[in-house]
Amino acid sequence: MTKLIIGGAQIGGIQKNETRESVVSRMIALMEQAHAKGVNFLVYPEMTLTTFFPRFYVEDRAEFDHWFETAMPNPAVQPLFDKARAFGMGFTFGYCELTPEGEHFNTSIIVSPEGEVVLKYRKTHLPGHAEFEPERTHQHLEKRYFLPGNTGFGVVRNQDVIMGMAICNDRRWPEAWRMLGLRGVQLVTIGYNTPSQNNLSAEEGIERRIYHHELSVCAGAYQNSTYAVAVAKCGMEDGNHMFAGSIIVDPDGFVVARAEGEGDELITHDADFAKCDFGKSTVFNFAAHRRIEHYGLIAEQTGVVIPD
Amino acid sequence: MTKLIIGGAQIGGIQKNETRESVVSRMIALMEQAHAKGVNFLVYPEMTLTTFFPRFYVEDRAEFDHWFETAMPNPAVQPLFDKARAFGMGFTFGYCELTPEGEHFNTSIIVSPEGEVVLKYRKTHLPGHAEFEPERTHQHLEKRYFLPGNTGFGVVRNQDVIMGMAICNDRRWPEAWRMLGLRGVQLVTIGYNTPSQNNLSAEEGIERRIYHHELSVCAGAYQNSTYAVAVAKCGMEDGNHMFAGSIIVDPDGFVVARAEGEGDELITHDADFAKCDFGKSTVFNFAAHRRIEHYGLIAEQTGVVIPD
Repeated sequence: MTKLIIGGAQIGGIQKNETRESVVSRMIALMEQAHAKGVNFLVYPEMTLTTFFPRFYVEDRAEFDHWFETAMPNPAVQPLFDKARAFGMGFTFGYCELTPEGEHFNTSIIVSPEGEVVLKYRKTHLPGHAEFEPERTHQHLEKRYFLPGNTGFGVVRNQDVIMGMAICNDRRWPEAWRMLGLRGVQLVTIGYNTPSQNNLSAEEGIERRIYHHELSVCAGAYQNSTYAVAVAKCGMEDGNHMFAGSIIVDPDGFVVARAEGEGDELITHDADFAKCDFGKSTVFNFAAHRRIEHYGLIAEQTGVVIPD
Repeated sequence: MTKLIIGGAQIGGIQKNETRESVVSRMIALMEQAHAKGVNFLVYPEMTLTTFFPRFYVEDRAEFDHWFETAMPNPAVQPLFDKARAFGMGFTFGYCELTPEGEHFNTSIIVSPEGEVVLKYRKTHLPGHAEFEPERTHQHLEKRYFLPGNTGFGVVRNQDVIMGMAICNDRRWPEAWRMLGLRGVQLVTIGYNTPSQNNLSAEEGIERRIYHHELSVCAGAYQNSTYAVAVAKCGMEDGNHMFAGSIIVDPDGFVVARAEGEGDELITHDADFAKCDFGKSTVFNFAAHRRIEHYGLIAEQTGVVIPD
């Protein structure tokens, strides 16, 4: 069975005026650290290349098209692809995608050690809202700037491991994990940008927020017997704080690596993917235990319907 | 909005030769304690009336029919129903059900303060196995003695709260929580009998087992913005140890009450069901955020299928 050293490359705040070239140089610095530690596969955050601009409102969405990539790779990120290929390292990162048809997505990709984009995922569960809402302490306008992803939750066999992606808020939705689990996933990568304060609740500060984050990732990993690498973009960004808390979780649902700071930081773990087999063949042997005849509403009914 | 004092009545081991009358008197003692504390709704464990007999193998299943109830209530448990009605207390407990058609289920019921059985649930996710398996440190023959439940995950409005049930292993399955969540659940009750040792893994002892238990209950409560009361039958039973760890969890996914011992013990919490509203209307506003077009496999495909 496959063993890989997996890494998470946490990225500290990216200010509004920071160039993609500058960010990519920070990404490469972390990749070099990772290579020195023997990392085979490296996970970067959601929207790695830019500040988390959905905190800003603009009436004309097109004014924000400059935050989006129209090709991937492109000249600004090509040095990252080149470095990874030289190292023989696979990696994943998130960015904002503007398609030739003019559609906007919150996207992530898995890149093989040969430098090929082997899987693309577009974020399914967009949090927040589409219009300016003055009652919030800060805006979270993902529903304004992105369409819900149209890819679903695919997997790819990369470096002999079945890998899939989720992005930020997806990690709170067991449906995302289960769709990947039903496809045999062994490694779920998750990038996130998560404000340290719930913008509608003064009571929900950083400790509660990090608890919810870990709870969701650990439960998802455990209940699908998969490794998970969840990586933050974090710290102060344009005057807003986002929590750090990057973690690697094993298929038994335990945190096995955790970032200590709120800046650019590498975490790593020696992953033995044979450890996915125990859960998948016993307590979470889906074929033996799932009862789909009782799950119909999950895929049929979007919102709550209280029976009479 | 409704406020109730909710309680969990953890039950220590019930030995093979203990009578139902004896168990019911222990249940009533806990109910009296609960009444003294103002409890309005009390949760007892799975299979409250008997030892956890699926640890024993018999070739002829019918020899174990004496562990099953053919009517509910019945004379042995009538004193519990009477006491609850006198107190004006709602309650739920689990027992083994043998139907007139000869079907065997692992069942639980919710009883109103008026003493009416207002909801029945039959356990969906039966763990373990159907035949004797000598490689296990102990047997867990639920698939031998029970049929998978045929009720699905219903809810009932009882005492002005939308209540639903899960039983033991169900708590590890996010599908169970989500089915209840889609019906607006505000209180999920869970009884369990969980061995302290994984019968196929010497490495997985009581600490890991309790972690998985809490992880599953807290994630389920958080991701569906519901209170949960998870109550053990626990301690030494016929020479086998089952963990305790009864907990009450709030709709934000935090443990708000926890049993300290491994015997008969009451835990309580002042529940304000208005607290379910925040999550249900924001981060877990299903109507706003769920994307059922990407969830199809969950209800269509039982086991893992790795794509080509």
